[in-house]
Amino acid sequence: MNFNTILGSVDFLEHLRGKKATFLLAGSVTKTCEIPNISQAGIPGKLYLTPTLDAEFLCLKTVRSLEDIAQTPKGVPTPALITRAVHELKPFSNLEILDLGLEVKPQLNYFKIHDFAINPSVRIDDGAQINAMEIFQKGLEFGTNYESSDDYVILAESVPSGTTTANASAKALGYKCDAYFSSSFKDVPNDIKNSTINEALKRVQKDDDVFAKLSKVSDNMLIFNAGFILGSTSKNLKVILAGGTQMATVLLIVNSILESMQGEIDSSNIALCTTKWIDEDENSNIKALLEQLNFPINTYASTFDFSDSLHPALKLYDEGEAKEGVGCGAALCYAAINGVNKKELTSKIESFLG
Amino acid sequence: MNFNTILGSVDFLEHLRGKKATFLLAGSVTKTCEIPNISQAGIPGKLYLTPTLDAEFLCLKTVRSLEDIAQTPKGVPTPALITRAVHELKPFSNLEILDLGLEVKPQLNYFKIHDFAINPSVRIDDGAQINAMEIFQKGLEFGTNYESSDDYVILAESVPSGTTTANASAKALGYKCDAYFSSSFKDVPNDIKNSTINEALKRVQKDDDVFAKLSKVSDNMLIFNAGFILGSTSKNLKVILAGGTQMATVLLIVNSILESMQGEIDSSNIALCTTKWIDEDENSNIKALLEQLNFPINTYASTFDFSDSLHPALKLYDEGEAKEGVGCGAALCYAAINGVNKKELTSKIESFLG
Repeated sequence: MNFNTILGSVDFLEHLRGKKATFLLAGSVTKTCEIPNISQAGIPGKLYLTPTLDAEFLCLKTVRSLEDIAQTPKGVPTPALITRAVHELKPFSNLEILDLGLEVKPQLNYFKIHDFAINPSVRIDDGAQINAMEIFQKGLEFGTNYESSDDYVILAESVPSGTTTANASAKALGYKCDAYFSSSFKDVPNDIKNSTINEALKRVQKDDDVFAKLSKVSDNMLIFNAGFILGSTSKNLKVILAGGTQMATVLLIVNSILESMQGEIDSSNIALCTTKWIDEDENSNIKALLEQLNFPINTYASTFDFSDSLHPALKLYDEGEAKEGVGCGAALCYAAINGVNKKELTSKIESFLG
Repeated sequence: MNFNTILGSVDFLEHLRGKKATFLLAGSVTKTCEIPNISQAGIPGKLYLTPTLDAEFLCLKTVRSLEDIAQTPKGVPTPALITRAVHELKPFSNLEILDLGLEVKPQLNYFKIHDFAINPSVRIDDGAQINAMEIFQKGLEFGTNYESSDDYVILAESVPSGTTTANASAKALGYKCDAYFSSSFKDVPNDIKNSTINEALKRVQKDDDVFAKLSKVSDNMLIFNAGFILGSTSKNLKVILAGGTQMATVLLIVNSILESMQGEIDSSNIALCTTKWIDEDENSNIKALLEQLNFPINTYASTFDFSDSLHPALKLYDEGEAKEGVGCGAALCYAAINGVNKKELTSKIESFLG
């Protein structure tokens, strides 16, 4: 197992080799996921459950809030399986859940679930109705005060239809986005996504500031994590943003906030890690998104794929049906810098599918 | 994988099984390496680059200060490959570089490079011209103040032509040395080495004290690390000296300094780990060197060899062409007490050679 450097140099990830990581899973629901066929990240009609189930599976290898693991209609298993498999072979030192507006609280004892009194956000084609400043400040405060006894923090997300809200957010903030955003669909349902995004963007006014824009078109995870990142730099916490284009959007939001405040960031302790499936995705371009930042960002992609597996459900990843989520790309990079064997990891993931 | 006990008992190394290690690589240049044919540890004419390249390869699996990995004329690959392979399969928790007089600073970000404002030392046949007391005190201070969050420290070296300076140092201090010193050559070029050592020893006066002798015939690594060892005992830091006859000489220097001060050392937290190739070397005798110490020292050798490899470049190790360096013996002992599989390690090393 290994990783590729998309932006920056190998040094950041290499110097974390063998070091201890806390894994934070930020779960959030935007009711955008209720728009039919907008995402395949979960069970149709029950996508609001996906982050809850992902949190349970990641922590416990079982789901409690539903009888089965979230599966998409085509049978693509949640990337939580990948992250969980890494956690079994080379455990993170600490797992915590950030509740950034879940419909259903994960049924977990002993695990820390941070409650920020955040509600699920409204469909972006209904105006999202987020108090973006408040969510941002909650993230900022959490990032500023977060104490870890580990060497670095992996910050992951589970937000069904989150690529749609991310795309809308980046576009509202004026970034070049066309063909840069991935989706959990292979045959990207651009009509539904684009019409939703366009509908959402209609509400954005020219003289809206960053937070006014985000209030109308974004999701809690994006805004909160932008605050977290800015807060974390005040104490030199090393943070790996674990995800694809959604986490890239977190950084675009950070960038816009800094621009509006004429502020600066020392981004040397922040990196982004994603999957090979995002890195090689022809329908998106994470590098092009990140190159619009005014600050450098070390960016890596795991080289892991399912070439050692014959399992048809897993092969769907290699075919582009699913690409990221639940921090699986960063988990795979973590596995790579901690001596996890590809064959053993593949078998472990297969074992979850029976 | 396993290890043999050369001196002392298995207990020290066994009690470190499963514990966390910091790996310190002390790199230094003695211009002795410019003497033609004195060492094959690197590229002829560019041996001064070897410690720089070793540091880069160990940390990053790439070299930045030269296009290729240091290879000897016969194609013996640097032992940094072995240490790096161990670091990939069972990472050290922390890697740091000690610059004890490098010509070229390793190009590393994020990794700590300790700078002691030490210059490369002069050829020993030109009198070395080291301020041994100052170098020793820098080592002493560093060892006294060094804080590790890990359970023990592996202290390794990369010093081309370092066996020559070690041999000269031990001889100048009055230890029995004949046929005890190894070299990175199989067909040990005794004429060049011995004539260099004899030329160097001509400058040593009968009434020179330990530091005066070392100033004329030694190298920075040996002197600094003797200080480090003495400093480290003040806070019970567990230290594994990672190397062969050079690290044995560090202990001989410690011994001579203690004798001159009528001091004593609690050596129970210090050990030396080396390779099978040193342990079984017919041209040297590390055990005989260490038996001249006034204090006991737990000494181990890895049992690893390239019997599982068919790669001709690696077979040269088993044929005695290369034996130690970049702490590969201690890295192999670390691998042995951390469950690394011999076949997997062999494959990993082979993968670096393409």
